[in-house]
Amino acid sequence: MFVDLAFTPHELEKKELAGKSVVVIDALRATTTMTVAFENGARAFIPVGTVEEARELVAKNPDYLLAGERRARPLEGFHLGNSPRDFRPDKVQGKTIVMTTTNGTRALVAARGGAEVFIGSFLNLGALCERLVEARRDVLIACSGEKDLFCLEDTVCGGAIVERLEKTGHSLTKTDAAQAAKVLHEQCEDNVHAMLCSCEWGIYLEGLGLGKDVRICAQVDSSKVVPVYREGKIFLDR
Amino acid sequence: MFVDLAFTPHELEKKELAGKSVVVIDALRATTTMTVAFENGARAFIPVGTVEEARELVAKNPDYLLAGERRARPLEGFHLGNSPRDFRPDKVQGKTIVMTTTNGTRALVAARGGAEVFIGSFLNLGALCERLVEARRDVLIACSGEKDLFCLEDTVCGGAIVERLEKTGHSLTKTDAAQAAKVLHEQCEDNVHAMLCSCEWGIYLEGLGLGKDVRICAQVDSSKVVPVYREGKIFLDR
Repeated sequence: MFVDLAFTPHELEKKELAGKSVVVIDALRATTTMTVAFENGARAFIPVGTVEEARELVAKNPDYLLAGERRARPLEGFHLGNSPRDFRPDKVQGKTIVMTTTNGTRALVAARGGAEVFIGSFLNLGALCERLVEARRDVLIACSGEKDLFCLEDTVCGGAIVERLEKTGHSLTKTDAAQAAKVLHEQCEDNVHAMLCSCEWGIYLEGLGLGKDVRICAQVDSSKVVPVYREGKIFLDR
Repeated sequence: MFVDLAFTPHELEKKELAGKSVVVIDALRATTTMTVAFENGARAFIPVGTVEEARELVAKNPDYLLAGERRARPLEGFHLGNSPRDFRPDKVQGKTIVMTTTNGTRALVAARGGAEVFIGSFLNLGALCERLVEARRDVLIACSGEKDLFCLEDTVCGGAIVERLEKTGHSLTKTDAAQAAKVLHEQCEDNVHAMLCSCEWGIYLEGLGLGKDVRICAQVDSSKVVPVYREGKIFLDR
């Protein structure tokens, strides 16, 4: 199995996606929040690039919920932000949610050429890796990064995937990027929460009073759901 | 002191360079080769982006030497490749060398906005860090990468700079990228040569029979020269 990793959507766009399992990670917070939403009964997410696009789509489909943020701040008239605590069962049960976030959406769009696209976070590492092994495809881990620059938390999460895949006993061929991510994960696997608190985006979120969200994003293996992104929608296919 | 790192020229282009000391690294092999050439008496390098540009410049200035490669292979009619072993005293003493390489040149061009731009490699780590401390500016480490993608060897070399700066006792504020580079360096500082042999580009060079070059690139602290890049030329300013 060949395992590669892109630190940013720009890097992802330069890579060959065809025939691969692609995993999109925005650990703080979008892909964590999606996982929590599915745990709480959400039907689907429709990720879109702009706030305008999101508003138009919900105007045409009044049953949809409008969710998202820009630099972790809420958007006017939106039903939900990007906090996992927003997506409670009473709000999201059975709902389709149109979502736009700073970085996660761009990574999803760049990932569309993959044979399969999965949503990954620290919450669903184990379940996700089972799906990857089952798929028997080469793996490309797509970090959302921050404004097309490296961010530590997505890379460490990607490194956790590399390490788990290796532990399944499959022979792995790793690129420099996948190897580096694995090393970065090894260095903090005993305390993912501390890493999330000390990385740039984590510090920013704490400063906005969102430390509770950071704690949720550190709940390794708390979920068994593996959302897939297919034909413009994110949903559970089993 | 604020320390940041760009994994690729594309990332560098997105960062603020003004007022900073920028260090350009292409550890395998361009910045190593330049350091060796200055040790052997070269006068200056003029880095250019294309093979055509290099040929034209040397046609106009017959005293100049023509050097470079594409994917580590020699170019027709060039006096020198990009192997440090090519730049012997009898060839480069007193010479100005027009150079074009796959990745290093792009990083140099992207670095031009820095207050000062230094040439870094494993060979001149100690001397380079002395210059950085003396300059008292924020530091931005610019890895050349491979075709605008992450490469391990430049990042590890950048991580070595971060670590050395920290050891000077200066209080450092590190970005996620600088912190990650430091961790990656710590993991292989006892054997830089082994890391250079196991990274993607090192494996490629070994496959071309260039293992001797890789060994030279691993000679930590073997040189005291710190080339600077200023007004289109690389030279020693002291």
